[in-house]
Amino acid sequence: MSLSDIKNSIRNIPNHPKPGIQFKDITTAMKQPNVMREIIDMLAAHFAEAKIDYVVGIEARGFIFGAALAYKLGCGFVPVRKPGKLPAKTIAEEYALEYGTDKLEIHQDALQKGDRVLIVDDLIAIGGTAEAAAKLVQKLGAEIVAFAFVIELLELDGRAKLEPVAEVYSLVQY
Amino acid sequence: MSLSDIKNSIRNIPNHPKPGIQFKDITTAMKQPNVMREIIDMLAAHFAEAKIDYVVGIEARGFIFGAALAYKLGCGFVPVRKPGKLPAKTIAEEYALEYGTDKLEIHQDALQKGDRVLIVDDLIAIGGTAEAAAKLVQKLGAEIVAFAFVIELLELDGRAKLEPVAEVYSLVQY
Repeated sequence: MSLSDIKNSIRNIPNHPKPGIQFKDITTAMKQPNVMREIIDMLAAHFAEAKIDYVVGIEARGFIFGAALAYKLGCGFVPVRKPGKLPAKTIAEEYALEYGTDKLEIHQDALQKGDRVLIVDDLIAIGGTAEAAAKLVQKLGAEIVAFAFVIELLELDGRAKLEPVAEVYSLVQY
Repeated sequence: MSLSDIKNSIRNIPNHPKPGIQFKDITTAMKQPNVMREIIDMLAAHFAEAKIDYVVGIEARGFIFGAALAYKLGCGFVPVRKPGKLPAKTIAEEYALEYGTDKLEIHQDALQKGDRVLIVDDLIAIGGTAEAAAKLVQKLGAEIVAFAFVIELLELDGRAKLEPVAEVYSLVQY
């Protein structure tokens, strides 16, 4: 199992969700036990010495890789969710979409000053979602150690938004 | 770490999302590394000999426990999602809510005849969501070995809907 095996397990869906977009379907990767295991083990190996307290996973595919990684690293898992999904007191952060804006929320008591956080999502495109998650983590006073993604779309250069904050680590690149 | 420690780590939010409802907030459990680990290890221990091929996780909190459990069991992970979220060809199943209906989808090629499946969600209430997920799995010809939940709300007797299909296993009950 190598990085190119992981890459080969990701299905390309042309013209989804609209003409010209090559959508990377990661469900075909997570479905294969050895690929799922390798993805988590490679991410965990990279951050094994990083003294992560919490993995923050971004709804919804970030929950899948974030939670398995939190389990493997022996960390707690903290979800960042779409508006109205978290039941206790939250803080919110808006971010830009191609057309309009969207919002992410975190529980106000989810993190504390000094907590060391790894932000996880399945994919980084323009980086807006991860940047919003980072602002939420910072508003709570926690420290962002790094961002981790399974897939990075290099052309969209999302890492330019995130690198001023912390390390950006991705497993496979397109 | 015992089942009562897990139970104590789950936050009760009175009158959420409406008066009279005691909402079980599981984010306070998943945030604690030892609780998260114990939840996954206890579920994995119960199904260690069940020869599960795939864990099917229900969006969105079912992704958190389902993916970590799939990792631990060495299974593949298959997501069941809200409409329009899966990028390839899907089949859908409608289910009743208190008012109106909702729908779940699965990729048409996610499972095959004979695959042994464990359906995972964070909580079972009336069981409508898990029942819809089960119908999707069955439509693809796969075999449901069991349903697993972290929390079961006994009063709502969701297990009555699911027990004719397969074993229903929950860690903590209210």
